[in-house]
Amino acid sequence: MKNSLLILAAAISGMPLAAQETIWAGAGEIVSPDVTPDGSVTFRINAPQASKIEITGTMMPQQEVTTPQGMTFKVAGKADMLKDENGVWTYTVPTLAPELYTYNIIVDGVTVNDPSNVYRLRDINSITDFFIVPGEASAPYMVNNIPHGTVAKVWCPSAQADNGRRLTVYTPAGYETDTSRRYPVLYLHHGMGGDENAWTELGRASQILDNLIAQGKAEPMIVVMPNGNIAMEAAPGETSAGLKQPTTRLPHTMDGLYEESFPEIQSFIDANYRTIPDKAHRAIAGLSMGGYHSLNISRNHPDDFGYIGLFSAAVDRGQNSTSPVNADPDGKLRRLAQAKPALYWIAIGNEDFLYDSNKEYLKKLDDIGLNYVFVESDGGHIWKNWRTYLTQFLPLLFK
Amino acid sequence: MKNSLLILAAAISGMPLAAQETIWAGAGEIVSPDVTPDGSVTFRINAPQASKIEITGTMMPQQEVTTPQGMTFKVAGKADMLKDENGVWTYTVPTLAPELYTYNIIVDGVTVNDPSNVYRLRDINSITDFFIVPGEASAPYMVNNIPHGTVAKVWCPSAQADNGRRLTVYTPAGYETDTSRRYPVLYLHHGMGGDENAWTELGRASQILDNLIAQGKAEPMIVVMPNGNIAMEAAPGETSAGLKQPTTRLPHTMDGLYEESFPEIQSFIDANYRTIPDKAHRAIAGLSMGGYHSLNISRNHPDDFGYIGLFSAAVDRGQNSTSPVNADPDGKLRRLAQAKPALYWIAIGNEDFLYDSNKEYLKKLDDIGLNYVFVESDGGHIWKNWRTYLTQFLPLLFK
Repeated sequence: MKNSLLILAAAISGMPLAAQETIWAGAGEIVSPDVTPDGSVTFRINAPQASKIEITGTMMPQQEVTTPQGMTFKVAGKADMLKDENGVWTYTVPTLAPELYTYNIIVDGVTVNDPSNVYRLRDINSITDFFIVPGEASAPYMVNNIPHGTVAKVWCPSAQADNGRRLTVYTPAGYETDTSRRYPVLYLHHGMGGDENAWTELGRASQILDNLIAQGKAEPMIVVMPNGNIAMEAAPGETSAGLKQPTTRLPHTMDGLYEESFPEIQSFIDANYRTIPDKAHRAIAGLSMGGYHSLNISRNHPDDFGYIGLFSAAVDRGQNSTSPVNADPDGKLRRLAQAKPALYWIAIGNEDFLYDSNKEYLKKLDDIGLNYVFVESDGGHIWKNWRTYLTQFLPLLFK
Repeated sequence: MKNSLLILAAAISGMPLAAQETIWAGAGEIVSPDVTPDGSVTFRINAPQASKIEITGTMMPQQEVTTPQGMTFKVAGKADMLKDENGVWTYTVPTLAPELYTYNIIVDGVTVNDPSNVYRLRDINSITDFFIVPGEASAPYMVNNIPHGTVAKVWCPSAQADNGRRLTVYTPAGYETDTSRRYPVLYLHHGMGGDENAWTELGRASQILDNLIAQGKAEPMIVVMPNGNIAMEAAPGETSAGLKQPTTRLPHTMDGLYEESFPEIQSFIDANYRTIPDKAHRAIAGLSMGGYHSLNISRNHPDDFGYIGLFSAAVDRGQNSTSPVNADPDGKLRRLAQAKPALYWIAIGNEDFLYDSNKEYLKKLDDIGLNYVFVESDGGHIWKNWRTYLTQFLPLLFK
């Protein structure tokens, strides 16, 4: 309280217009995370009354856990933070490779966010803090002093939802001013439990696009990130359902309804944005569930997409559906092979639980004669991989 | 851990495609806040190892505190949460009036966010959880099943910043499809420490606009919410400065530089959106620092704005600046009075530290003969008031 009073006094004397309700909160003088140029990171939390504080996150060595059913998984490890004489707890990681890392702090057994870090990411129903260790691998994720695209939340008319479905639309720098120019389009899909915000928040898609386009590594393009959950028209909190807890337990995720509705999104984008509406200038990609959506949409519309990207895709879904988009999948794949898309790009981590099914899918593609590029990375079913795959995929488009 | 394992097992069996890194986190089965239709709200947190848990927020009775300098302020009160035999702590507020409330939980002395609530708001460097008690007063803040406008993050060319300044631009439902229609524009400014995200997040501006427009209470309009901090081109995390802690300690907040730069924003909007570029269809408003910006821009451009709104405005700033926009303020105000804007609307809470200076400003307007509407509300320098003022102001525009 004393510290708060001093902050208040300083604020009132120097800055009388700061919001009264805000001056009292905030982090005070604790800096956390403290990322140094050599890649060491120190976390701090002011908690004189706490008995035990731990930290967990993607910067920690992984630990194996086994479920009661005998399934084994790797999860982020944790470590104890150390308390000093002032009640400030610290933990330092001496060196970290350049990357975007997510973490949480555990205060007397309760997993919370770092009170000193306002930069956070929501993944379904969990919120982690994040930081970036700068360097070559994380350079695409930084905001740089370069021209920036526009990011819009747009409602697209839909037969399933009275007032449409929410999309995130990225238009590249110059789109507003260079009004005679038309652009290629990438449709980019999230995974189960995700929504139209996932690729721009967890995926750093707008930073990756701004950077690759400014460097001339990717073509300026429109990127459409739809809400791919047919049972919800928008992200949690953005619908008339109110402020409900997010869930992965949604119906109709991979039964064909999304793929059936996809043409309304494509029509809306071609009608309202300056697209080049042909196969050579249209790409589709997605992660996990969104990889399956992209796989299935592209084989149902073999002449629509010149570039197809499957990131840790759920390749073997849809068998139990009566939707017409799921009928004759292998016949459709054969027709797609005949249409010869310029790029059929598949990436997956060698620890991903979908690894084996993806390798099986490659055999099917070999049998059918559909040319593909396969990229095998380290790691599992994680956003670090999906950010990397997007960074690798974008430069291959529209060339 | 056991609970996590059960969640994992359930997730793996039923939903094999949820992200591996996510299944482990999240809130489990705790529901918090639990808002019931009768307006009671229960907060819960699972913390068997914690010694003391408190809750604080705008739903609590206020407490007075006095600084060492003898200044007295009201701040949100706090209360103890109560632990049950399972280690779940609860606190119930029996009835709350319809409103948007913000709160934090204090775990063994550490102010954190509710681990079960993903709905949060950042105000400068503090993050609170929020919830809405439904009812007449909060109805404008809800997402309803009505047509929605588009919300875009747009970079506007600027002489001060190589790659521009970031704006939030709201375009009303139908803007994309009804392409022959032109619209009036409101420029809406945040306060000190705020940014281009403040009005759409803390201020619920897009929900308020969607609702009032759908009900026919407000005209369909474009609303431009610029970053009004001339020393930063965009919100924290959206600039090349990286993931720095946000601060109110910015230079050049009210020395005239923002007002000098404002015409470049107006020109960009008129060039890139289907505006009606005249005084009868152009409004300007803002809160606190942004109220001063709006006051000063409107008196420097007496023929540009038909509608002016000052919400808890810092009316008496700018005296110590040599900027031309601050020269001859009373003469400029007289010329604005002669131009007879359709609306000069001033609102402030009777507990606001700017209340007295606003009352003084009304005397000046009386002396000069500038007609105004004055609205005095309860409360201080708080977002509850600014949301209310916006809801009251919008229906008065462009009539």
